[in-house]
Amino acid sequence: MSFLDRIDECRVFDDSKYRPFRVEGAEVGLVDHALTDLLADYTEAFHVGRGEIGFAADLKTPSARSRTIAAVLDDLRGRGEIKGWRDEPFPVAASHAAPILFTMERAAVPRFGVRAYGVHVNGVVRDGESLRMWIARRSPNKQTEPGKLDQIVAGGQPAGLGLRENLVKECAEEADIPAKLARRAVAVSAVSYRTERREGLRRDVEFCYDLELPPGFEPRNTDGEVAGFELWPIERVIEAVRDTDAFKFNCSLVIIDFLIRHGFIEPDHPDYVALITGLRGLQA
Amino acid sequence: MSFLDRIDECRVFDDSKYRPFRVEGAEVGLVDHALTDLLADYTEAFHVGRGEIGFAADLKTPSARSRTIAAVLDDLRGRGEIKGWRDEPFPVAASHAAPILFTMERAAVPRFGVRAYGVHVNGVVRDGESLRMWIARRSPNKQTEPGKLDQIVAGGQPAGLGLRENLVKECAEEADIPAKLARRAVAVSAVSYRTERREGLRRDVEFCYDLELPPGFEPRNTDGEVAGFELWPIERVIEAVRDTDAFKFNCSLVIIDFLIRHGFIEPDHPDYVALITGLRGLQA
Repeated sequence: MSFLDRIDECRVFDDSKYRPFRVEGAEVGLVDHALTDLLADYTEAFHVGRGEIGFAADLKTPSARSRTIAAVLDDLRGRGEIKGWRDEPFPVAASHAAPILFTMERAAVPRFGVRAYGVHVNGVVRDGESLRMWIARRSPNKQTEPGKLDQIVAGGQPAGLGLRENLVKECAEEADIPAKLARRAVAVSAVSYRTERREGLRRDVEFCYDLELPPGFEPRNTDGEVAGFELWPIERVIEAVRDTDAFKFNCSLVIIDFLIRHGFIEPDHPDYVALITGLRGLQA
Repeated sequence: MSFLDRIDECRVFDDSKYRPFRVEGAEVGLVDHALTDLLADYTEAFHVGRGEIGFAADLKTPSARSRTIAAVLDDLRGRGEIKGWRDEPFPVAASHAAPILFTMERAAVPRFGVRAYGVHVNGVVRDGESLRMWIARRSPNKQTEPGKLDQIVAGGQPAGLGLRENLVKECAEEADIPAKLARRAVAVSAVSYRTERREGLRRDVEFCYDLELPPGFEPRNTDGEVAGFELWPIERVIEAVRDTDAFKFNCSLVIIDFLIRHGFIEPDHPDYVALITGLRGLQA
């Protein structure tokens, strides 16, 4: 196993299996053929063409589209087609900074191959030359990847919050990090990927932050999403990412990016350029 | 002008103008049609096919290829076709870590669209919350981009030296940085690009290092390549890269990468993902 294997696990994608979902000219999703066949029955909601899918022509506003797709998804949920319902509206737009085209239930996002955004925090403790990293173990009750290792704080980007606001909120909920400390997090990078998972097609951009924590700080989970935290020497983190699949798939990418930025993976590594390109070369 | 303009200046490329130069199955160069016509006359050296160029079939060893292309380039130099002769053998391989397939005069590298590698050092001085960066002004006598702004230390990767050895050597020559201090440089990233310049097609991977310098250190050029050094507040560096073309084209990319890694460009910048992808998404 190698660092590059972690990246390859995040680019499992077969173009021929999907049809673009377009709204106002922008490709906002990729829908597989099975879901396409289901959606074709909801003619009041969708127009299913040979090369693409879109909303029905009379659904011209974000609120009309959102109401309509909500009814369809509720019906599909009743038929057992949408699993892991979260009751959380997810904003769909042409890009992160663009206006919202409609909102949809978050659980359906990977089924529609819609791009999502999140924040991931590398929580580290420096002590002279030594560097340790706080590692979270995901709760056995999480819907995706229960029990896997994770960043100290990571979360999806919801509608209506700024990235920094979301970061501070997630820091409080997931690790009881006070706002004053959380605000010291430095934006450092983004990783992106497009890959097929059990839940559907994940097309994510994860914004990465480094947060140096004082040696005396102890994270404490408050929202039930984390089973526990451990403070690992960076060497142990390196081995776990390189040699095992103990980390959640996208958390591995965030750590490889960290290792490159801090000189723990050096340019004489034979995969150095492939790693750097692979972490964000692909459009999600 | 914007950060993204700096990246766009590093991806001026028209595929239809070039033919791949292949050696032992690997594409090691991209040759434009004018040079292709010239090379077609050297039938003892090259085989010019419709879709690609290669060495003549009997040139099977690195030394035979190197000797043969040296004679051709010497002839082309006499005809005024290769300018800025450096008398410096450049190793050509399928990738940075791969075995050398042949060597060629460095001045001909962009004419053949051969990939090159280099090291760039961000030399910074921290003082509490403030950050300053040492900026070099290139000598008016440099063959490429005289008078432009540059990193404190940057140089091409020659044959037979490791990256770290080259870094220490360049630090000594370009800025009189003692080896002990130079070895503190941390490998942090790589930027890559493929772009047409006056000298030909530049396809480079630049390995980036951050080096924190003590406030009392004063760089001093010893090889005549730098006209002078200035210590700039990071805000002035940001403005110069974003709003002007004062920096050498690839040095701008190294600085944009630095600004992202250190949180001076944040994810709410509308071009954040495009910048991160553009810095290393393209294969060089």
